[in-house]
Amino acid sequence: MSLNGLHKLSYGLYIISSKMGDIYNGQIANASIQVTSDPATIAVCINKKNYTHEFIKDSRAFTVSILAQDTPMDLIAKFGFNSGRDVAKFDGIEFKAGKTGAPTELAHCVGHIEADVISSTDVGTHTIFIAKVVDSVVYNKKEVLTYDYYHKVKKGATPKTAPSYIPSSANHVCKICNYEYNEKVGDEKAAVPSGTLFEDLPNTWVCPVCGADKSNFS
Amino acid sequence: MSLNGLHKLSYGLYIISSKMGDIYNGQIANASIQVTSDPATIAVCINKKNYTHEFIKDSRAFTVSILAQDTPMDLIAKFGFNSGRDVAKFDGIEFKAGKTGAPTELAHCVGHIEADVISSTDVGTHTIFIAKVVDSVVYNKKEVLTYDYYHKVKKGATPKTAPSYIPSSANHVCKICNYEYNEKVGDEKAAVPSGTLFEDLPNTWVCPVCGADKSNFS
Repeated sequence: MSLNGLHKLSYGLYIISSKMGDIYNGQIANASIQVTSDPATIAVCINKKNYTHEFIKDSRAFTVSILAQDTPMDLIAKFGFNSGRDVAKFDGIEFKAGKTGAPTELAHCVGHIEADVISSTDVGTHTIFIAKVVDSVVYNKKEVLTYDYYHKVKKGATPKTAPSYIPSSANHVCKICNYEYNEKVGDEKAAVPSGTLFEDLPNTWVCPVCGADKSNFS
Repeated sequence: MSLNGLHKLSYGLYIISSKMGDIYNGQIANASIQVTSDPATIAVCINKKNYTHEFIKDSRAFTVSILAQDTPMDLIAKFGFNSGRDVAKFDGIEFKAGKTGAPTELAHCVGHIEADVISSTDVGTHTIFIAKVVDSVVYNKKEVLTYDYYHKVKKGATPKTAPSYIPSSANHVCKICNYEYNEKVGDEKAAVPSGTLFEDLPNTWVCPVCGADKSNFS
């Protein structure tokens, strides 16, 4: 059975954030939709393994920071390819705590939505949290970052914990973030010319998306 | 409380279809996402008032036909602004019945996903159906139609039963499909020049989106 059609669904790219105790945490997600208009409710789909899942279960609230198209890849890498168990996600980030206490990123978003969880649905590896919107702001008129633009133009990768993750059959794939090193292309960010074999990359070379070293590549 | 941020979530535009008895039916929806990758499952959010809701509850299966950017507006109007209670949705439509019996539109889609419902979540006015993917095909390399493109470029409207519906405060709004007649713009489709007052439109003029006559405008 083919799963190719699943790649053709359209999404945005968001930071889903929450607060537990004194800790702010967040992660990248694409699966967030409005589910009713009266009252306004939204749904987000979060992997049970993710630290943010614990936060939302505990606090019963979250924010959706809606990323702009010009969001730098290192912000996406920080929130998308690191766990809040290892990294203080909001350290060094410009943010605001909302009505529920959950934080929203301010420097690279077009707006945010803040919501109180009213129910949750277990869907196996993930939970769908359904939440009533308690606040929502638009900051600017920038283009939003779509999942399609992230993949096609920004050449972004999909973490293994995403609902839309598909295992790769390619060589030289980062086990952390699923980035594929393509020998025909090289790595512009690290000034590695096209045609450079993976084995010829210096040991100081790191994944351009998540910063993992060569030993993390399959 | 502002709800403006909700407009900044990204979606595609899909025909969600199902079969009940010998009848094929379908509707336009934007709220469809993948929720897990192993096994591959998707979610769709459907208004309880819609005829398609009955079909999915009865057959426990549906398809997602993923519309291409060049989909004609009259196809969207047929599936989006008419009820299957009044109109035989698949009459005159090129389609294929899948493994579950549910039909997929063939002439204007980039691909489809077919799925068996495994659970449903009541979210008030709507139901979220969670379904295991049983088939999925990509037909071509056309651009997909996003909800943003539908609004901004195709000037499409949002039906009242959509999760993302927002009541309009404008004059001259179609009560059927929520299309707004703008006197400054006119109606290119009907060769109505810009600056034409609504009251000066001929009685033969109909809504360019859904075909409703002038008496259906508020």
